[in-house]
Amino acid sequence: MEKINPMDIEKRSFEIISSELNGIVLDEEKAPIVKRVIHTTADFEYVDNMYFSEGVVEKALEALKRGAAIVTDTNMAKSGINKAAAARLGCEVHCFMADEDVAKSAKEQGVTRAAVCMEKAVELQKPVVIAVGNAPTALIRLEELMKEGKIKPELIIGVPVGFVNVVESKELIINSGADAIIAKGRKGGSNVAAAIVNALLYMASPREGI
Amino acid sequence: MEKINPMDIEKRSFEIISSELNGIVLDEEKAPIVKRVIHTTADFEYVDNMYFSEGVVEKALEALKRGAAIVTDTNMAKSGINKAAAARLGCEVHCFMADEDVAKSAKEQGVTRAAVCMEKAVELQKPVVIAVGNAPTALIRLEELMKEGKIKPELIIGVPVGFVNVVESKELIINSGADAIIAKGRKGGSNVAAAIVNALLYMASPREGI
Repeated sequence: MEKINPMDIEKRSFEIISSELNGIVLDEEKAPIVKRVIHTTADFEYVDNMYFSEGVVEKALEALKRGAAIVTDTNMAKSGINKAAAARLGCEVHCFMADEDVAKSAKEQGVTRAAVCMEKAVELQKPVVIAVGNAPTALIRLEELMKEGKIKPELIIGVPVGFVNVVESKELIINSGADAIIAKGRKGGSNVAAAIVNALLYMASPREGI
Repeated sequence: MEKINPMDIEKRSFEIISSELNGIVLDEEKAPIVKRVIHTTADFEYVDNMYFSEGVVEKALEALKRGAAIVTDTNMAKSGINKAAAARLGCEVHCFMADEDVAKSAKEQGVTRAAVCMEKAVELQKPVVIAVGNAPTALIRLEELMKEGKIKPELIIGVPVGFVNVVESKELIINSGADAIIAKGRKGGSNVAAAIVNALLYMASPREGI
């Protein structure tokens, strides 16, 4: 067992991740994001499967510094986001999944609650970062809403996990040309969505002592 | 894109997982747990890395049916647990990580908050299921508390993720002979912890229509 101060565990973890990249050089602005995803999953596949649209990191940081609203598709992702770091930038974190009107509307329309949540994001009427870690149906509905001109997210974090329409929903967002960070393939999750949000928050407003 | 009713996505996902196991036969009582972990991660490595102590599933189901308290080491894991399913069995879900006294005690002792959370679990004075998805220090402290005779969990779900003392903390629990479900190696996470709890809850009290 390695004797280590609690405050140093994260730093040591990132050192191990860097050393195990075996000389793979990540783009400077992408590295903190990819490494934090690996830190959250212990899965080095993310070195190869992450897609970043042109200039997305810089744009995302600007949006967060201007206090964009962050909308997640699970309360689990919301729970994993560092709320103190978000608050420092004036960013609120929303998840509408447990809202009664969302459940009602989803049932009436025969769609998922996650899809309805994207419609609620439109109503925020402010710059938004959308972080999807679970439901491909959220990305599919989001792409429709973008095509209809109803929403233009500052950033889409598209990392749903799973087996049904997950790969396709991610391709849809990539092909839309939106500003997006995507984990291609089946992998992802609420934890990955939260990790990407946190990486960006820490880049936009560095934490003390880390 | 596959056209599918929202209610059927989970069922279809499990069918795909079963078909991609390529004839690997999982023990009947372990299969719903391993498959739900794969459902949550899209990572088939869990077929090989999950450890179940002798008779643990049956014992865990009995404990949950008697309303054992479930204690997690992250609010994210707590958030991912199906609270309605837990409530049907009379199981409360606790996470002490954000408690003020935990932060204070951790700072004073120079240990992680997760370690202090295990001490708070002792105070519950009732049967507990401990679900650790993040902090190896929680498992390390838990093993000490067990050796001191202060706690004997009905079940330990030991699936912290990461690079520092993670593998070792899991081996510690396996070697203790405790009733445990462990993801050996570096992988795991709050999502995996929640998935294992949910799989057990659904086995103990099946959901309608699934």
